[in-house]
Amino acid sequence: MYHVAVYGFGKLGQAVCQAIRIAPDMQLKAVFSRRAAGLREDAAARISGVPFLEPEALEACCDGIDAVINCGSSAADLPKTTPHIAAGHCVVDSFDTHALIPAHFAAVDSAARAAGTLCIISAGWDPGLFSLMRILASAFLPQADISTFWGPGVSQGHSDALRRLPGVTAAVQYTVPDEPSLENARNGIPPSAETPVHRRICYVCTAPDTDRTVLERSIRSMPYYFAGYDTQIRFVSEETLLREHSGLPHGGSVICSSDAEELPRHALELKLSTGSNPDLTAGILTACARAAIRLHRAGECGCRTVADIPPSLYAPQDASSQRARWL
Amino acid sequence: MYHVAVYGFGKLGQAVCQAIRIAPDMQLKAVFSRRAAGLREDAAARISGVPFLEPEALEACCDGIDAVINCGSSAADLPKTTPHIAAGHCVVDSFDTHALIPAHFAAVDSAARAAGTLCIISAGWDPGLFSLMRILASAFLPQADISTFWGPGVSQGHSDALRRLPGVTAAVQYTVPDEPSLENARNGIPPSAETPVHRRICYVCTAPDTDRTVLERSIRSMPYYFAGYDTQIRFVSEETLLREHSGLPHGGSVICSSDAEELPRHALELKLSTGSNPDLTAGILTACARAAIRLHRAGECGCRTVADIPPSLYAPQDASSQRARWL
Repeated sequence: MYHVAVYGFGKLGQAVCQAIRIAPDMQLKAVFSRRAAGLREDAAARISGVPFLEPEALEACCDGIDAVINCGSSAADLPKTTPHIAAGHCVVDSFDTHALIPAHFAAVDSAARAAGTLCIISAGWDPGLFSLMRILASAFLPQADISTFWGPGVSQGHSDALRRLPGVTAAVQYTVPDEPSLENARNGIPPSAETPVHRRICYVCTAPDTDRTVLERSIRSMPYYFAGYDTQIRFVSEETLLREHSGLPHGGSVICSSDAEELPRHALELKLSTGSNPDLTAGILTACARAAIRLHRAGECGCRTVADIPPSLYAPQDASSQRARWL
Repeated sequence: MYHVAVYGFGKLGQAVCQAIRIAPDMQLKAVFSRRAAGLREDAAARISGVPFLEPEALEACCDGIDAVINCGSSAADLPKTTPHIAAGHCVVDSFDTHALIPAHFAAVDSAARAAGTLCIISAGWDPGLFSLMRILASAFLPQADISTFWGPGVSQGHSDALRRLPGVTAAVQYTVPDEPSLENARNGIPPSAETPVHRRICYVCTAPDTDRTVLERSIRSMPYYFAGYDTQIRFVSEETLLREHSGLPHGGSVICSSDAEELPRHALELKLSTGSNPDLTAGILTACARAAIRLHRAGECGCRTVADIPPSLYAPQDASSQRARWL
């Protein structure tokens, strides 16, 4: 039995608690959350009988926890908390700022090697499952082009960016892949780096007296987020937003294809859609916690990503049962 | 530089020679083939300057070959030749009789451990890439159902079965997945074990005086191959067969989906199509040879499958470049 703790109890942390519950070989030992005071009763009911503690209490809990699943918000928390936890425990996180992964890897690796713990970072669907597919495709079909498309789905980062604008009381942003670009990629014509291949659809609620024309203009001109993108803005009531846009669906495709005359014609696509982004990420994080504990018990330490993990370590069954059933 | 030999010089062996040629870190050291006498001139031109030797010569070639890619025909050769070669060299093969993989694994593992070599068996797209996807899906989406569909594509086994019938001079069999079953699987309703989910389309050339009605009846009643399947039989001339059906396209899908009301709704599909089955398999075998050599140099021995290999070992780049580029 693998003994696991959850650090952070937002949507992802709650989904991870549920994923641990259905795992045949895992037991949830504790939940650590800043919200402990505010949420204690409600949360205690949800995770029946598991201690719900302040984050500071983790340092004293060295015994009986094989791995900590760090469910903090990526941009803000993980670069600090994952190396910190790694000094005492094996940790798994879903750090997802692609450009900063090498720096995060270095920080976690150094903390984990010093402490003799084993950590897996950037474990989710992208980075994570999609990274794995890009690595396999690059190795197995070395002459093909690889493209990644995201959506249709809710982007938390873009939704947050809308919510920070003055006059916006609530907002949800859907990222939608451009269908012609998807079809081109499937036929061996990958998008050029300059062409935006995603549309952005924004559902926005505003405070009374907000000048929507001015607001629209500021949304459309936000660099990186909306400027240069095909952006649709739809103003809705908070009731509509709550009723029609409170799910967290997401998905995407990794497409690997070759078109050149002289090459063998291969096309490979991994296509994903989920009605609940946190539930999907939770399933992957939980499988990675299992792999981290197994690697640590085998004497390994340091930082890893999905690129470094033998796939049979993710599933509860032993390697020979998996071979007989899935190979 | 990794030094590789190819054992067997049929369609797969020839495709592997080409895959080694485009690999930046590999060199083809020798080709071993029973056809050495017959094909020597033709083959020598194709693989310019590489020694082309009888299979028996491999045993004397212990130096300078890091791994042997065994390209023998699966059902007949590999259970004998892979353990035999493993006694002297690291070997990679594409053994594809799913039910016999555990026995083949045990035989190769025992030979490889005794000799201190590292072998990877069943490396292709199925078993291989599709196995990897089934294992990941079973671990990451533990409550979802997993189905595999093959085709549209040419099945060598079924084509061979047709060719063995009296009166048949040439034949090609296409396996075609049943579209409604595919759609059901995508929507979380996997096929039952009893329902055939593939159609079979046979292009058959016959000798003069063959009773085609009798032949059709014997095709349709062949157990395992055609009995119980939706089978179409089309009689064509050898010219037509050669002109329209001499490619070896193939492909398929691994579908992982959940439908139950109380579960989070996830759908994952890995979809593959190739215009050349041997070229695709060759790319995967070659990447697996790289992984086998790296594991062997790291001091490991015994038999492995894709379930056991850290994915970063497949590609030429080092782990940190892959992390920066693909994660």
